[in-house]
Amino acid sequence: MFSTVLIANRGEIALRVARTCREMGIRTVAVCSTADEESAVTGFADSVVRIGPAAPRRSYLSAPAITEAALQTGAEAVHPGYGFLSEDPDFAEICEAGGLTFIGPPADVMARLGDKAAARRIMSEAGLPVLPGTDATGAAAAEAKRMADAVGYPLMIKAVAGGGGRGMTPVRGPREFVRAYRETRAAAKSLFGDGRVYLERLVEPARHIEVQVLCDRHGNGVHLGERDCSVQRRHQKLVEETPAAGVDRAMTERMCEAAVTGALACGFTGAGTFEFLVDGDDFHLMEINCRIQVEHPVTEMVTGIDLVREQIRIAAGLPLGFAQDEVRRHGAAIECRVNAEDPERGFAPAPGTLTAFRPPGGPFTRVDTDAYQGRRVPPHYDSLIAKVVTWGPDRDAAVARMDRALGEFTVGGPGVHTTTGLLRKVIGEPRFRRAEHTTALLREMHLGDSQGE
Amino acid sequence: MFSTVLIANRGEIALRVARTCREMGIRTVAVCSTADEESAVTGFADSVVRIGPAAPRRSYLSAPAITEAALQTGAEAVHPGYGFLSEDPDFAEICEAGGLTFIGPPADVMARLGDKAAARRIMSEAGLPVLPGTDATGAAAAEAKRMADAVGYPLMIKAVAGGGGRGMTPVRGPREFVRAYRETRAAAKSLFGDGRVYLERLVEPARHIEVQVLCDRHGNGVHLGERDCSVQRRHQKLVEETPAAGVDRAMTERMCEAAVTGALACGFTGAGTFEFLVDGDDFHLMEINCRIQVEHPVTEMVTGIDLVREQIRIAAGLPLGFAQDEVRRHGAAIECRVNAEDPERGFAPAPGTLTAFRPPGGPFTRVDTDAYQGRRVPPHYDSLIAKVVTWGPDRDAAVARMDRALGEFTVGGPGVHTTTGLLRKVIGEPRFRRAEHTTALLREMHLGDSQGE
Repeated sequence: MFSTVLIANRGEIALRVARTCREMGIRTVAVCSTADEESAVTGFADSVVRIGPAAPRRSYLSAPAITEAALQTGAEAVHPGYGFLSEDPDFAEICEAGGLTFIGPPADVMARLGDKAAARRIMSEAGLPVLPGTDATGAAAAEAKRMADAVGYPLMIKAVAGGGGRGMTPVRGPREFVRAYRETRAAAKSLFGDGRVYLERLVEPARHIEVQVLCDRHGNGVHLGERDCSVQRRHQKLVEETPAAGVDRAMTERMCEAAVTGALACGFTGAGTFEFLVDGDDFHLMEINCRIQVEHPVTEMVTGIDLVREQIRIAAGLPLGFAQDEVRRHGAAIECRVNAEDPERGFAPAPGTLTAFRPPGGPFTRVDTDAYQGRRVPPHYDSLIAKVVTWGPDRDAAVARMDRALGEFTVGGPGVHTTTGLLRKVIGEPRFRRAEHTTALLREMHLGDSQGE
Repeated sequence: MFSTVLIANRGEIALRVARTCREMGIRTVAVCSTADEESAVTGFADSVVRIGPAAPRRSYLSAPAITEAALQTGAEAVHPGYGFLSEDPDFAEICEAGGLTFIGPPADVMARLGDKAAARRIMSEAGLPVLPGTDATGAAAAEAKRMADAVGYPLMIKAVAGGGGRGMTPVRGPREFVRAYRETRAAAKSLFGDGRVYLERLVEPARHIEVQVLCDRHGNGVHLGERDCSVQRRHQKLVEETPAAGVDRAMTERMCEAAVTGALACGFTGAGTFEFLVDGDDFHLMEINCRIQVEHPVTEMVTGIDLVREQIRIAAGLPLGFAQDEVRRHGAAIECRVNAEDPERGFAPAPGTLTAFRPPGGPFTRVDTDAYQGRRVPPHYDSLIAKVVTWGPDRDAAVARMDRALGEFTVGGPGVHTTTGLLRKVIGEPRFRRAEHTTALLREMHLGDSQGE
């Protein structure tokens, strides 16, 4: 096992990874930008390296700064968290070339799956259902338009290098296409440095259901069940839960099996997520994420399995410690992402100094955050300030607990706003309570999600 | 189901009960003394009644103040928490006479079991093994001495009305007896208003193992497994865990069955705990607690059952929602009681204003506390400021997680000290890690527990 791991990330996930390392007896190196010196992880980790200024490109996205910090501190492995460099095959290669184990899938697998258009093709060949769509293209608008007409409308233009809900544009009909195509390509180029896109039939409203897989380096793969992430705002997940309620169990089991098949077919190792859209009785693979997900705690709560621990064990070359039939799922869990945003002002980021910060606690309630009373939440990064996760013997109990937990969460400070009130509205909505909601829920509730955005 | 419940307690347990009420859709009334106006429960509850000054006799022990608060606020039931009036049959009767449901066993059952000497006899008749000992006595010292000689030494002199580690004196040999007898009777009179004591053979070192039972008002009873509470300082529990490690499973199962037998034999209803001493291959019943225990969260973590919810459901007349064979226990859980005490100065209470308070979080970590940054911890009550509970798939994982959680728990303030460092020493001790410890562990570690205290 590694004796020292560097955590190439920030915020709650950096602390989350550090906690598991500590429990495994592994020394932790945290890295931080100048904007994050106050993060709780800097007080927790065994050592801290200041890697650069607030701008991500010069800190959390800087492979040289991070690998130098790792070599400086004697780290043997790097955990990339989510976002930033976590799905960058070049970074994984740089790590391995520098003698550092990248805690994630092999670089070549990440490269293949990270090209979302290529991933569609590979998975289709492995027998997984994918939506009608195209390969990657950088074609001229007129040619792309002909491809779009063949796929059919509505459709989605998606950046090949996209993910996490960014770099995608829905197109309702042929007349919108050309402008959307040009804009998406420009955005993709600017966001990801790769202007290639692909087209995919848009299914909406739908349920967004994803499957957690774990594969070791010895050919063993298991799934840990599914998560429903249908509550979204502009394709950003707000509320996630497991099991998926209101969805046929036989279908989710087929999705789980398909995910394991797909993972083993492409040589995937580590923790990954297969994202599906469910449209009536059909499901279609959308994309594969090669990293820990923000919403992984709901899976941990129902399985009792520490996913970060499994990631580290797999990266260290250990075989999975359990077989599929030893994975038991108990009860239901739900996660709400609490963002420092003002829903009254178009979800504008509302960071600042937390003069009050009292997260919820008590039975079956988990909070992941790097914030605390007195912390200045920096404006430079995403606006997630805490994840609240609750468990119950059934969905109703978990949801009632979540409402209680969000209700007791006190966050205050000059200019600071959060989404706790909005989240309580969402989980109190009858369609959500009846598990009849889709990805259109926020729009239907007139809660700041508008068609086409 | 009740629409409003008054919580006749303070501190973490008041908030813990209020949380479950909220999740059940029940309005909550908190009561507080003038010293507790800042408790987190006063901000959480639907209404708050200031019932008196800091002195418990005029607030949390005042049945008239509490019942008046209940009637004033339209409460239909009273949850007594632990300590204070929770095991006072007179209070239960006063509640019922005032039309309030007391969330606990019937007053007459509490009266019978609350007399620890009578409980011994009843349980012995029900077939449970009890230690050699006597009935209640207020005999003159010379006669008591003859009874003591018959029981044999070492023995314990225990207040009939005692509990929670108070009102008991160990006696190593005949020459110590008379003085200890007189002192214990005087202390019992002053602490509990009842100077009667009983004698019981002292088994030490031993393991302290207790069984959680739940019985409804329809004749159904189940156990939720055992808890090991052997880590004590002056008979006060510091660390509790489940399952009991290093103890024969067949024996703990027999203890669990004995507890259910005993509970059903005496008409017990609600949540109760049967406390046993384990001495080699034998176990002996010590006492029965008719209330929720401080350490109940470890049972909740392995069973997934909310014990306060079950208490409330039973008090509302509902049958248990599950049978014994539906109670599943998963993994291991451990609780550490963090006290505001200074282990360097004889565990003197060290309360004060919490200028820093950052409880641990993350995976499989639960914190129950009514404290927060800025709260003044009052000096008038017990020194418990937080319970930290962790879960793991096995004991080693739960303990490693606890060490991580205690390590990240930041508490500070002028004059404020806590026992987190001491607790980490205890759970790091090889005898504890090997589960070979007994109630003598702290003494053996020279950690402020001395023979005979």
